[in-house]
Amino acid sequence: MKLCKTIADLKVEISSAKASGKTIGLVPTMGALHEGHASLIGAAASENDITVVSIFVNPTQFGEGEDLDSYPRTLDADCKLAEGMGADIVFAPTAKEMYPSEDMTWVEVTGDITKVLCGRSRPIHFRGVTTVVSKLFNLAEPTRAYFGQKDAQQVQVLKRMVKDLFFNLEMRIMPIVREADGLAKSSRNTYLSPAERQAALILSQSLKKAEEAFNGGEKASSKLVEIVEAHLKTEPMSDIDYVELLQLPDLTVAETEIKKPHLLAMAVRIGSTRLIDNIILG
Amino acid sequence: MKLCKTIADLKVEISSAKASGKTIGLVPTMGALHEGHASLIGAAASENDITVVSIFVNPTQFGEGEDLDSYPRTLDADCKLAEGMGADIVFAPTAKEMYPSEDMTWVEVTGDITKVLCGRSRPIHFRGVTTVVSKLFNLAEPTRAYFGQKDAQQVQVLKRMVKDLFFNLEMRIMPIVREADGLAKSSRNTYLSPAERQAALILSQSLKKAEEAFNGGEKASSKLVEIVEAHLKTEPMSDIDYVELLQLPDLTVAETEIKKPHLLAMAVRIGSTRLIDNIILG
Repeated sequence: MKLCKTIADLKVEISSAKASGKTIGLVPTMGALHEGHASLIGAAASENDITVVSIFVNPTQFGEGEDLDSYPRTLDADCKLAEGMGADIVFAPTAKEMYPSEDMTWVEVTGDITKVLCGRSRPIHFRGVTTVVSKLFNLAEPTRAYFGQKDAQQVQVLKRMVKDLFFNLEMRIMPIVREADGLAKSSRNTYLSPAERQAALILSQSLKKAEEAFNGGEKASSKLVEIVEAHLKTEPMSDIDYVELLQLPDLTVAETEIKKPHLLAMAVRIGSTRLIDNIILG
Repeated sequence: MKLCKTIADLKVEISSAKASGKTIGLVPTMGALHEGHASLIGAAASENDITVVSIFVNPTQFGEGEDLDSYPRTLDADCKLAEGMGADIVFAPTAKEMYPSEDMTWVEVTGDITKVLCGRSRPIHFRGVTTVVSKLFNLAEPTRAYFGQKDAQQVQVLKRMVKDLFFNLEMRIMPIVREADGLAKSSRNTYLSPAERQAALILSQSLKKAEEAFNGGEKASSKLVEIVEAHLKTEPMSDIDYVELLQLPDLTVAETEIKKPHLLAMAVRIGSTRLIDNIILG
């Protein structure tokens, strides 16, 4: 496996792969890789000739007071995991290389799709995500790009960007990977104390409650949200940022009675750690 | 030559060209093709295996009260000119196809580079240009893209976008093509009455005055701007929007004494038609 720390290094690899007609799978990450990322890398390696894993803690998607500085950085371990899952290239550039100009060139999806859910409390987040992913798409020229359903809103925003700007690639969305007890895998789980780790189970448990109610015949969107909120509140350490049920793919207001696919998504603080989780209903 | 009126049609052509390893030259235009465009198409045809000319009057780069509705549309004549210059494909999509979502995904270069010159009176113009050109780049996947130096600020903004977002292509900038009497070729010249057409010579003449002064030893930026403004004002039909001298490539404030390359650019109304012209000094 090759570690490319500069854009120039990556370009050599990509143009050689392209020249020989190879397919390229790109897995954009911020590092601190866990089994969720491993599933993306494994899928990319099985579906493409060349698998590129980018590792870049992207400053433009962090707001004031967020965890940019404390976000875990574990490049050596990440390279081992990536190589073990079949990656051919790890691309780990500096912020200076990824943002060469003092003034930014932004790629921004507008409308409700970026304003609901995490967009309410993180107003600049998705602009940072779409900007950096555009750069990575242009650098790695992937045949397929891999993202986790864990970041459900990111998935919909990036799909919209790909559709609107006509990026010539296939978006491959992989299921959420969970711990044995149901907690969705996240690089931010490392922030949790043992007591918080236990309390964090309330997220997946409350989604399960909603799923059971839905499968048992409850189709009223307001009722389903109530079920989730009520269950989250049974955990004293939980502090709800949002629980929202929205139509897919555009994250518009839910139907009163759910018939088409909807996203049920939440962000909940456990102590000072903000966690997200979701399921699709319908 | 093939006329592609849909994205699906274009994609068939591009993927076939890519699969056989052909180089692609893209000439993005708004149609109403003249000899300036012809020089771009000719250059593209001589440097690439396949030449794509896009013809799309892009609504998002026109502001309120600008000439979106009256902009000349001459597709049949454009196709003839393009074919005569060696184009292989004319891509003439609808606005609905180019903008598939109700909410926009914007590509926007920020900072002074989009705020000076035409950016002062056309605040949304360059956001529309960078957005549509990004789409065209992703659709046509060009090896080289061709633009005219006539739109000097557009050239610098697009170069910045290509640099910041890492589009994998070469920007080819072609010199301004002028009428025998010096008027820069423009699709908007068709708006001019015979008297206005004569008055419009004041633009290129005043740039020539500045160039003569510069070559004669005048290096003071304020003085060079004064020479141009004074000459423009000798024409009663001229109404200056701006005359600016700025450093290349980032369009920052001019040096007091010009040593490095600077752009001397102007926008001037002749009657109700707004014309632009420029030269590079230094």
